[in-house]
Amino acid sequence: MAGPAPAVAAARVAVRAALADLPAGALVLVACSGGADSLALAAATAFVAPRAGLRAGAVVVDHGLAPGSDDVAARAAATCAGLGLEPVEVRAVDVGTEGGPEAAARTARYSALAEAADAHGAAAVLLGHTLDDQAETVLLGLGRGSGARSLAGMAPVTGRWRRPFLALRRRDTEACCTALGQEWVTDVTNAPDGPWRRADGGPLRRSAVRHDVMPALEAALGPGVAQALARTARLLREDDDYLTRAAADLAARAGLGEDGEVDLDVAELAAEHPALRGRVLHLAATAAGCPPGALAAVHVAALDALVTHYHGQGALDLPGAVTAVRRCGRLNLSPPRSARGQ
Amino acid sequence: MAGPAPAVAAARVAVRAALADLPAGALVLVACSGGADSLALAAATAFVAPRAGLRAGAVVVDHGLAPGSDDVAARAAATCAGLGLEPVEVRAVDVGTEGGPEAAARTARYSALAEAADAHGAAAVLLGHTLDDQAETVLLGLGRGSGARSLAGMAPVTGRWRRPFLALRRRDTEACCTALGQEWVTDVTNAPDGPWRRADGGPLRRSAVRHDVMPALEAALGPGVAQALARTARLLREDDDYLTRAAADLAARAGLGEDGEVDLDVAELAAEHPALRGRVLHLAATAAGCPPGALAAVHVAALDALVTHYHGQGALDLPGAVTAVRRCGRLNLSPPRSARGQ
Repeated sequence: MAGPAPAVAAARVAVRAALADLPAGALVLVACSGGADSLALAAATAFVAPRAGLRAGAVVVDHGLAPGSDDVAARAAATCAGLGLEPVEVRAVDVGTEGGPEAAARTARYSALAEAADAHGAAAVLLGHTLDDQAETVLLGLGRGSGARSLAGMAPVTGRWRRPFLALRRRDTEACCTALGQEWVTDVTNAPDGPWRRADGGPLRRSAVRHDVMPALEAALGPGVAQALARTARLLREDDDYLTRAAADLAARAGLGEDGEVDLDVAELAAEHPALRGRVLHLAATAAGCPPGALAAVHVAALDALVTHYHGQGALDLPGAVTAVRRCGRLNLSPPRSARGQ
Repeated sequence: MAGPAPAVAAARVAVRAALADLPAGALVLVACSGGADSLALAAATAFVAPRAGLRAGAVVVDHGLAPGSDDVAARAAATCAGLGLEPVEVRAVDVGTEGGPEAAARTARYSALAEAADAHGAAAVLLGHTLDDQAETVLLGLGRGSGARSLAGMAPVTGRWRRPFLALRRRDTEACCTALGQEWVTDVTNAPDGPWRRADGGPLRRSAVRHDVMPALEAALGPGVAQALARTARLLREDDDYLTRAAADLAARAGLGEDGEVDLDVAELAAEHPALRGRVLHLAATAAGCPPGALAAVHVAALDALVTHYHGQGALDLPGAVTAVRRCGRLNLSPPRSARGQ
């Protein structure tokens, strides 16, 4: 008897490795959209999980953004059930508008998946992101300009989220579905002529990166760019992890422990290596109440200027109504008045 | 009397800051191609240097690659002399082929500039690279996939090389030349229809990045991408500097001091954070004789697998005929036999 097709075997190997540390009897849920990546993930998980002593189900999120999305969701759920996954459920979500259509859909999706995982007591939720998604995420991060943190891509494991396919190509997941006779849907939201447009009429950011930037980069630099971007993400994630831990140790020794008002010695900060100082200042700002998502590289640079290029500049306003001021050799970051119990 | 145009003032401020630490009477040489960036640099340096107690000259490198390059070089030299720079000299170079046309031209150029600096006893050589060049350099590094090291861009100061314009845009240098009535030449080698083509008929890498990739990125992510890339380069250069120093300390403590055979304790390496371990392995490979330019991320990853994912794999062949082998809990890297005095 012939073995499985190479793409099918590769998908199973990837899922087996991603589940190896789970205890017997644990439930894993596959997040399935009906696209090739998550269908291949569902099929591989349905094969691997029972042989590894695990239970496997699936959750299909219906974003309700395109006409007939409920039909697509129902078909994906039926396919998952046909693969032997149990439980399988469809969760319809209301997508808001905060942060733009892509970010709002993402927020709604992860929230629905987390609720499903809680409801079923799942030990892990498997996501179908591929190496191509990772490469696109790195390119999207280039626009933020916040260094390693913005280019670190998606982690293979974060809490209960696991991404077994980060080393597989998108076309591998399509080959996997083809070999298994599974029909997939193409995600219309990411198609260049998809229904969503930016306010200026341009395509969505990820769609533009996928269909315009990546081909231009491959034409300029040659094939292998996607793999190089994924490798860079892994290396920078390691760097950022090490440096963030080192900065946290330093911050703790400097007395930055509990959230609230922060008071740091300017001379000590100035003597630190800039790679650590920037991260200590980031930690200090979030401890004082800056929302991490709103704290940008320019804010950290302005804080750094208070330490290293001080020429009497006044108080600095940071996101979340946090105020930073240098006074008598100390850098003081104050939470908004409302948070100070006044 | 009106002050200088804003672009002229910005160029002078940048040059003044870049020369601030040089001793009185020192000579700085401007590398001038006749392009807007280096002409603006020549003009700003001619203004700033005498006022800062410094001497300033210029070197024009004639790559001899396009017809009439000697005329272009002679005109650039005449312009520099007209600005009051002294000495001004043209150096004609023979561009080889190693590493492709862009790398070969770069090697020949830096070598000619270094010889001129030696001949005149220059304390610094000023290069006209702008923020746009820096952004392109980061994008070119994406194809290497070696993490922070490949995305760190160009340093403002490396030895005697200084790049005062890394925070200015290319269009600022053009505005500067226009305000001063200086005519510049457009670098034909980087034009999309320039004389150089890759073996496959495509444009050169930097030209493709400048004319195809950067506009696609700006269309996808919005304006500000070049600044974000330059900021990322600075942040990653700081990260890499810190981590490389930490790895060097670690390597020194592990007995990796002099070049030649390297023998490391596998258990100690395995216990290190991956951000440091990768860099220690890189240092170990170069100490054993791997040419740094030929040592790629895949080689370091294969060395890392000998430490963290050992399943009896045999000796590993590295660039420069270095051999790595794991034996009895030690990782041994041997220089080529010829270098071992046999």
